[in-house]
Amino acid sequence: MTAKSQQNWDADPAETLRVGEGFSLAAVDPDSKPGYEGDKKDGAEDLAAGVAELDELQEKLFAASRVDATDASVLLVLQAMDSAGKGGIVRHVIGAVDPQGVSLTAFKKPTAEELAHDFLWRVERRLPEPGFIGVFDRSHYEDVLIGRVRELAPADEIERRYGAINDFEKRLVDGGTRVVKVMLHISPDEQKERLMERLDRPDKHWKYNPGDVDERELWPAYMQAYQTVFERTSTEHAPWHVVPANAKWYARLAVQALLLQALEDIDPQWPAATFDVEAEKARLAAS
Amino acid sequence: MTAKSQQNWDADPAETLRVGEGFSLAAVDPDSKPGYEGDKKDGAEDLAAGVAELDELQEKLFAASRVDATDASVLLVLQAMDSAGKGGIVRHVIGAVDPQGVSLTAFKKPTAEELAHDFLWRVERRLPEPGFIGVFDRSHYEDVLIGRVRELAPADEIERRYGAINDFEKRLVDGGTRVVKVMLHISPDEQKERLMERLDRPDKHWKYNPGDVDERELWPAYMQAYQTVFERTSTEHAPWHVVPANAKWYARLAVQALLLQALEDIDPQWPAATFDVEAEKARLAAS
Repeated sequence: MTAKSQQNWDADPAETLRVGEGFSLAAVDPDSKPGYEGDKKDGAEDLAAGVAELDELQEKLFAASRVDATDASVLLVLQAMDSAGKGGIVRHVIGAVDPQGVSLTAFKKPTAEELAHDFLWRVERRLPEPGFIGVFDRSHYEDVLIGRVRELAPADEIERRYGAINDFEKRLVDGGTRVVKVMLHISPDEQKERLMERLDRPDKHWKYNPGDVDERELWPAYMQAYQTVFERTSTEHAPWHVVPANAKWYARLAVQALLLQALEDIDPQWPAATFDVEAEKARLAAS
Repeated sequence: MTAKSQQNWDADPAETLRVGEGFSLAAVDPDSKPGYEGDKKDGAEDLAAGVAELDELQEKLFAASRVDATDASVLLVLQAMDSAGKGGIVRHVIGAVDPQGVSLTAFKKPTAEELAHDFLWRVERRLPEPGFIGVFDRSHYEDVLIGRVRELAPADEIERRYGAINDFEKRLVDGGTRVVKVMLHISPDEQKERLMERLDRPDKHWKYNPGDVDERELWPAYMQAYQTVFERTSTEHAPWHVVPANAKWYARLAVQALLLQALEDIDPQWPAATFDVEAEKARLAAS
């Protein structure tokens, strides 16, 4: 926590936002900014400082992977109700990183081919390679969220999935992937405002889906499904983080801080040359 | 050519840089800045203006594709000798676009599985979906460049590939993909300087490969292979552009201009709402 971008945090973001024993989603205020002492202006400065830090850590991680010096990768899993700001995280936090080291997947309604396989099949195919920051915009958790709320699978199959997810993520972590799971938490009123803005602006109409209003009716059921997800899948190896997201600037800063901590934990180093530097200089000079 | 970013071009970049009848790579000066009247400082300003233009065009294209209002996509094919600046294009031109609308593939030495298929197999799998800007960092052209120079395939197979590439790209273009093919052209001396810098800086060692020096010995053979590529595959539907790249700022600006022109040619529009906006406002307000 010595990084410049983290100077206004009065508590470790990963600790503060982590879903632990006795966690209650209902008790989280979507307007709050846990652990952060600064205001919006400080947040903008810290985000910019964090961009530079993330950039360097990502490049080191990527560099190490190119010479087989690391198996490490990061997987950011983003889940949220519609309009909670996943897109903004992708654009403003992930978009600040060199695209060469990022692999982003936006999971949609499963295709017929995907449905013909186990729910983890399509996810497995999109895991980040060593050296990469993988981002899942929605994920395998859809299969225990909308899957549960809309009863898209039998109850015993939904039950089975929590355990399958824990096993799956354990395997990822054992293989060198830091799994950073984030739920962006907004209030129903904030969502209403954001959806209304999409209806007010013709350049935002494409982001609006009438089904979003139908999903709003199921808000309590979704919150219950999230609560169950947290209770069943916030594990030691891959804990959940709930990020209050009514203030977009806070949510972006918090997710950036979580990513930074995951990368600092990997602590990637510029890899040593795998060749004789002086000999190569001589060869190059003579070429 | 009314866009702000293009005010310092005294000629259409696509026209100026296009490989046409009688083109000779040997006649292109890697230090030149064809079509651009400004200096490096103008270039930085124009690049920044172009970022905003590209961003809006890309979002419109993506938006249109989300409501099935377009089949259009863009595919940028980047080819070059090592250290010519492909990575800088990816970072500074592509990296400025919202990652949600970009799909980037860096093609490496083919795997055993890839080699077991036709050379276009792995490329086909990485084509951009409608609404996306696809970027190939290296591409199917490796199979007629290093493939030819290093004799990785029989001569008649190499010959076959030019025609196969033209047919393949014609199909892409007919399907709505603008194929923007770019060779970044540096001089051997410029390459030597850039490789030497990689050797001088421990944080750049990972980018250096002793094989790069071996490839330098084959520079004339590579230039001949590129010349043949241009003669055989710079088609009406998918022309090549040779971008002098000794000046990184010019190369980035030129590639950005080519991308902007491809997107302007598509002319994406914010899609009309596929729902009754007023009715949705009422439903949302009541929810």
